[in-house]
Amino acid sequence: MSSIGRRGALAALLAMVLAPLGAQQSIPIQNGAPVPPPGLPVPPLPNEPIVYPTAEGMDIRVSVVARGLENPWSLAFLPNGDMLVTERNAGRLRLIRDGALVPAPVAGVPEVRGVGLSGLMDVVLHPRFDETRFVYLSYNKPFGEQAGLAVARGRWNGQALTDVRDIFETRDAGSISRLAFGADGMLYVTTFGGTGDAAQDPSSLAGKVLRLRDDGSVPPDNPFVGRSGYRPEIFTMGHRSPLGLALHPASGQLWEVEMGPNGGDELNVLRPGANYGWPVVSYGRTYPGPWQSEKGSTHEGFEAPLVYWMPSISTSGLAFYTGNRLPKWKGDVFVGGMRYGEIPGTGRLERVLFNENMEELRRESLLVDLRQRIRDVRQGPDELLYLVTDHATDGAVLRIEPAN
Amino acid sequence: MSSIGRRGALAALLAMVLAPLGAQQSIPIQNGAPVPPPGLPVPPLPNEPIVYPTAEGMDIRVSVVARGLENPWSLAFLPNGDMLVTERNAGRLRLIRDGALVPAPVAGVPEVRGVGLSGLMDVVLHPRFDETRFVYLSYNKPFGEQAGLAVARGRWNGQALTDVRDIFETRDAGSISRLAFGADGMLYVTTFGGTGDAAQDPSSLAGKVLRLRDDGSVPPDNPFVGRSGYRPEIFTMGHRSPLGLALHPASGQLWEVEMGPNGGDELNVLRPGANYGWPVVSYGRTYPGPWQSEKGSTHEGFEAPLVYWMPSISTSGLAFYTGNRLPKWKGDVFVGGMRYGEIPGTGRLERVLFNENMEELRRESLLVDLRQRIRDVRQGPDELLYLVTDHATDGAVLRIEPAN
Repeated sequence: MSSIGRRGALAALLAMVLAPLGAQQSIPIQNGAPVPPPGLPVPPLPNEPIVYPTAEGMDIRVSVVARGLENPWSLAFLPNGDMLVTERNAGRLRLIRDGALVPAPVAGVPEVRGVGLSGLMDVVLHPRFDETRFVYLSYNKPFGEQAGLAVARGRWNGQALTDVRDIFETRDAGSISRLAFGADGMLYVTTFGGTGDAAQDPSSLAGKVLRLRDDGSVPPDNPFVGRSGYRPEIFTMGHRSPLGLALHPASGQLWEVEMGPNGGDELNVLRPGANYGWPVVSYGRTYPGPWQSEKGSTHEGFEAPLVYWMPSISTSGLAFYTGNRLPKWKGDVFVGGMRYGEIPGTGRLERVLFNENMEELRRESLLVDLRQRIRDVRQGPDELLYLVTDHATDGAVLRIEPAN
Repeated sequence: MSSIGRRGALAALLAMVLAPLGAQQSIPIQNGAPVPPPGLPVPPLPNEPIVYPTAEGMDIRVSVVARGLENPWSLAFLPNGDMLVTERNAGRLRLIRDGALVPAPVAGVPEVRGVGLSGLMDVVLHPRFDETRFVYLSYNKPFGEQAGLAVARGRWNGQALTDVRDIFETRDAGSISRLAFGADGMLYVTTFGGTGDAAQDPSSLAGKVLRLRDDGSVPPDNPFVGRSGYRPEIFTMGHRSPLGLALHPASGQLWEVEMGPNGGDELNVLRPGANYGWPVVSYGRTYPGPWQSEKGSTHEGFEAPLVYWMPSISTSGLAFYTGNRLPKWKGDVFVGGMRYGEIPGTGRLERVLFNENMEELRRESLLVDLRQRIRDVRQGPDELLYLVTDHATDGAVLRIEPAN
């Protein structure tokens, strides 16, 4: 043993002796994971607009469009600029008409099982909505005592959904789900992977992005159609918590964001049949501390993320900004963040700037001072950005416009 | 080619056609890298103390101890609580006596080449300072037109340095350097790795942590002593920008932080003879966008970091907090951050919380609202935390104390 080796052994011995003496405080543990701290106090949303500087020299004004929503989760724009907003646990669909929240919920929504982080999830319009009037909802469907995921489709008659029916359902998957239509006219449905191995199991629909026709049937050109042991609905696999899904405006590819366990949030470009690694490869740790993956952060046979975050910002919704009203942000990607580094009260809107080869150049954290959990982000038909903030009693829809 | 494959090809073609139509704004490029944005406006430091909430339910009061410093870089406490502060480019050592900045610089400092990010760097006291009165300085030493790194040692006579001489010098390395004494009484000297391959070259002292006796000579038990092609001063190699170095209070190991290129900042535990990967493996990107490393973020034969950041917070100084005055932070690690995601005006103090196995549990960004570049962080003999902020004309020493 070298002199340094002996010193190392001595240091290790010293560590054992000294550690209980108080160099390290004890961390409260519950269910094998550290109890989160109280977090930063979250001031109430002001009713008056707030102006913030941003990194590109553009000031923005953030205004409340609607508030008092119960855990709003997603937002869809009707062609006239009115908005449909889901309220997760209450299982309500709300209408914002001419900039004002209509008090009565939209009729025609199926019965929803609103528990924990699940309930009524996403709302999206059919790509030919003007012609079909179809609105799609993903939700936690009660199967007796069991939860399941369903996608319902109904027709918008101007004030309610009619002819509502489930076009897809499964008891495999967790019931948190994002929806998006692809450039190919197909409906993409994300499913929750959770903590187990189901995201790697091709016979399970959990932890996947599914590709369906607009009536819920399986298109015959899906990547695993006819492959033994594989569910034909699967487009991609190996996802943990795919809560953001959006169509890249130029490439026509779907981009997806998912939150890592304790760090390792990912922004992925979805390729047919690809495996994104959860829970086998990850940039993140487990909540009690050890790394998630023995294989490391990237591994052959698994798709590497385009962008990742360490620590976690608890990614949620995803949008591309293609408008002209916020010119410094044109072409940039926006990701909702619920909290930074596992600390409550640290939500933000994250902006990611890419070069022409879709390689990241830099990142900006926006609206940090607001301390809201940013659940979703969308571009409006007015080329402004709209946010949904997660709060049990005063969730809001916010608008971002230029202020200089 | 499958139907999806054809769609992919069509999408790629569409992308080529659509991209110039403005889905992506053009990014100004200079010297092959994107020009940073203006960044967030940085308000002047207030003279009055500021109280901030923190995540653990502890409020803190941040006060200015001294200001008007020119790019202060490091801070050392004298046993009586007075402080020595380096001013980087001016090459001055300043004394804060009884809480007030002494107007005249400390005499006895060698001539320093103050250019760019280099000049007079670190200041540390000998571990047996009461007996030896030795103060050590790392600095950019002019060798004619060339820069070099030197470590000077002098005796503190209560108001000036006397008997100052260089105990170590090299023209190999970049001239940015942090110093720390180990539990073994040895002086550890970090050297800048920069962009080339020198950090992997064992015959160069660049991108290394060196281990020296307190008189600058090489201890015979260094890991590469007697190994052909290796400089005997080397303790660890493969470092990019090792600007933080501190002794773990319980284990006696040295912990080191270095900023990644464009993401991939690392906190490493230094082990004798180990290679930390730069520029061969990295979690980061290059500034123009492509990933830094073809080998990925971790690779056999290279030490993985204990903690990493993506995007970069531009890590600088490092300290362990072992005091009782800020009880919620006892045992936690503090890292200075100069900016988040390559955006100017987004400095912060990062707190990292570990479990008893030295695995990370969570991270908190502190002092974000202050928008200062946090250059260094130290625990004072009064068991409070002290920060050095980087500013060309109004750099400051700040104190953090409990406020509730």
